Amino acid sequence: MDEKNIENKNITTPEDGNAGRSSTPAQEAAQPVEISELGEFGLISRLTKDFPLVNPSSRLGVGDDAAIIRPEGDKEVLVTTDLLLEGIHFDVRYVPLKHLGYKAAVVNFSDVYAMNGQPKQITVSIGVSSRFTVAHIDEIYAGLRLACEAYGVDLVGGDTSASMTGLVISVTCLGEVEAGKAVKRSGAKPTDLICVTGDLGAAYMGLQLLERENRVAAQSGDPAFQPDFSGREYILQRQLRPEARKDIIDALAGVGVTPTSMMDVSDGLSSELLHICKASGVGCRVYEDRIPIDYQTAVMAEELNMNLVTAAMNGGEDYELLFTVPLTDKERIEKIPGVVMIGYVTDASLGAAMVARDGSELPIRAQGWNAFS
Amino acid sequence: MDEKNIENKNITTPEDGNAGRSSTPAQEAAQPVEISELGEFGLISRLTKDFPLVNPSSRLGVGDDAAIIRPEGDKEVLVTTDLLLEGIHFDVRYVPLKHLGYKAAVVNFSDVYAMNGQPKQITVSIGVSSRFTVAHIDEIYAGLRLACEAYGVDLVGGDTSASMTGLVISVTCLGEVEAGKAVKRSGAKPTDLICVTGDLGAAYMGLQLLERENRVAAQSGDPAFQPDFSGREYILQRQLRPEARKDIIDALAGVGVTPTSMMDVSDGLSSELLHICKASGVGCRVYEDRIPIDYQTAVMAEELNMNLVTAAMNGGEDYELLFTVPLTDKERIEKIPGVVMIGYVTDASLGAAMVARDGSELPIRAQGWNAFS
Repeated sequence: MDEKNIENKNITTPEDGNAGRSSTPAQEAAQPVEISELGEFGLISRLTKDFPLVNPSSRLGVGDDAAIIRPEGDKEVLVTTDLLLEGIHFDVRYVPLKHLGYKAAVVNFSDVYAMNGQPKQITVSIGVSSRFTVAHIDEIYAGLRLACEAYGVDLVGGDTSASMTGLVISVTCLGEVEAGKAVKRSGAKPTDLICVTGDLGAAYMGLQLLERENRVAAQSGDPAFQPDFSGREYILQRQLRPEARKDIIDALAGVGVTPTSMMDVSDGLSSELLHICKASGVGCRVYEDRIPIDYQTAVMAEELNMNLVTAAMNGGEDYELLFTVPLTDKERIEKIPGVVMIGYVTDASLGAAMVARDGSELPIRAQGWNAFS
Repeated sequence: MDEKNIENKNITTPEDGNAGRSSTPAQEAAQPVEISELGEFGLISRLTKDFPLVNPSSRLGVGDDAAIIRPEGDKEVLVTTDLLLEGIHFDVRYVPLKHLGYKAAVVNFSDVYAMNGQPKQITVSIGVSSRFTVAHIDEIYAGLRLACEAYGVDLVGGDTSASMTGLVISVTCLGEVEAGKAVKRSGAKPTDLICVTGDLGAAYMGLQLLERENRVAAQSGDPAFQPDFSGREYILQRQLRPEARKDIIDALAGVGVTPTSMMDVSDGLSSELLHICKASGVGCRVYEDRIPIDYQTAVMAEELNMNLVTAAMNGGEDYELLFTVPLTDKERIEKIPGVVMIGYVTDASLGAAMVARDGSELPIRAQGWNAFS
């Protein structure tokens, strides 16, 4: 996934007041194109022209009443959808629009990987208020395109509309999985090993940092205020430009392991562990000292005087994979870099608990991100 | 489609101030359930529990990272999506929420029929601001459920979120079509007959009526103001509770006709004719006196001093089907009730025109509904 690179310097947000200058043709900088000039069909055609179809299953893309998908051979189709609303899921004051487009796509890909599938198509619906120009929407689609290219996914449809209020992005992703090979949340069995990829809590700490710097900028009253993010690149990237773990799905297939249950960590590890326990009718024990945490995450938590393990367990937006495998797969899992075994599945009667460093057990409660709290 | 019946009297909107009293349990009327009490997962489970899966292709529905669809045999999958935003696509002051849910589903089904397919699954994402209670969302889902039952479609996934601003509904629909049998916009040939179903302009006139009565109510200052809609039921129903033309798709198959091109009339006949002409590389002639218009539509246009043909050609939201068939299919098409032949396809060089009653030709221009105007 390293070949793609979103350059921050070419990204503008509506609040910059110089929308599109750096990333769109010169004549547009001089005179921004208003969406109403293009109309809905002109806008759709402009936004989607740089999205060639690459998957053989994508038979017909944008431009008709519906797209046509033809799953190959004995494949099943996976469908997942996410709604991103301004002010709830993102703040355009500090989220570059290109990153936003990238993230909107990737979080959906992550859900398909979490079923052991491969994302193949997306539809993107977008509602934009009048403070957005065509150049802004171009930025969002530039991010969507980068994500589609990086993960081999086709944009096949969507809808664009004005919005009376904020920016709305709704992405639906279709994926493929060999028939019968989809991994649900419900297959975990007592004694299975619990595994998690990458590290946790970094995206949450990145958000805390962005929010703090935004407050500082507002208080400074200086429009040229430049936050210093040096040494914080990793936690910012985890928040602004997350990646989905295609590499892990490919590696699991490579070592011949099919997890008994799997999901992606979007709301926080605690919340996801409880989902798997509930769906599978099991309990679990995870060890505090096995929870993978990056150094930058730890430094930021200390600086903000926040509990590090709480952040890692409940922060959310990690888009790592949480999965369970039979004990007999232990050696094969150990061959996959970036996978950590954090505990094991128990009988339901034992409940879900974290084993602290001193050996005491703390019940796991969902304190994950709640869009309604 | 007559078996389903949405009763207006059981519908409330947030503006009624007595949300849910008539259609939810008594204890909720006494104390409306706040969304934050249920949380996101509680809300999803409440909203989706009454949606059993009926299609064999729906292998896994709501509750995992993605739904699993298994198209039968040699079927292709159709995908379409629509984003409905408060203040742009609907006004909750006069659109009952149950109707809104019904319409949100049906407009997507219509797109699948317009490809000669059958809708099978939907995902529904919804963003709700704090002025909506659980009872309101229940109403939207009651409408979605009615539509799913009437058309044999499964709800298989979605997303729910708070919204800082208005109500947001994003529906994606998957459908099935026999491989190679999808009808696109691009297959119309010169001399083909142009057909349209039902009648046009009624939904637009229904909207004009609702907007007028809303203004009158506001001006009257009387909170108990009751608009008189008697004799206007048809145009209101066309606006508030449109149906998709499953019957026509089934009838076309019944008489053995596959249209050369097809789309649904959502933005207005003029706009759709131009889409087919552009996609197919053809021109067209349609006869003013063949445009099907209901009596109530005509009466309303006269009352509002609006040009009737303009309303019928450009009104939009009819959700009728516009299609072309070879001349040789004329007799078979005549066997299908509710289909009108309104003109014929020409060479592209002749352009797109309407032939007026006096024989003069008026160029067809898209004045269809534009979400950005």
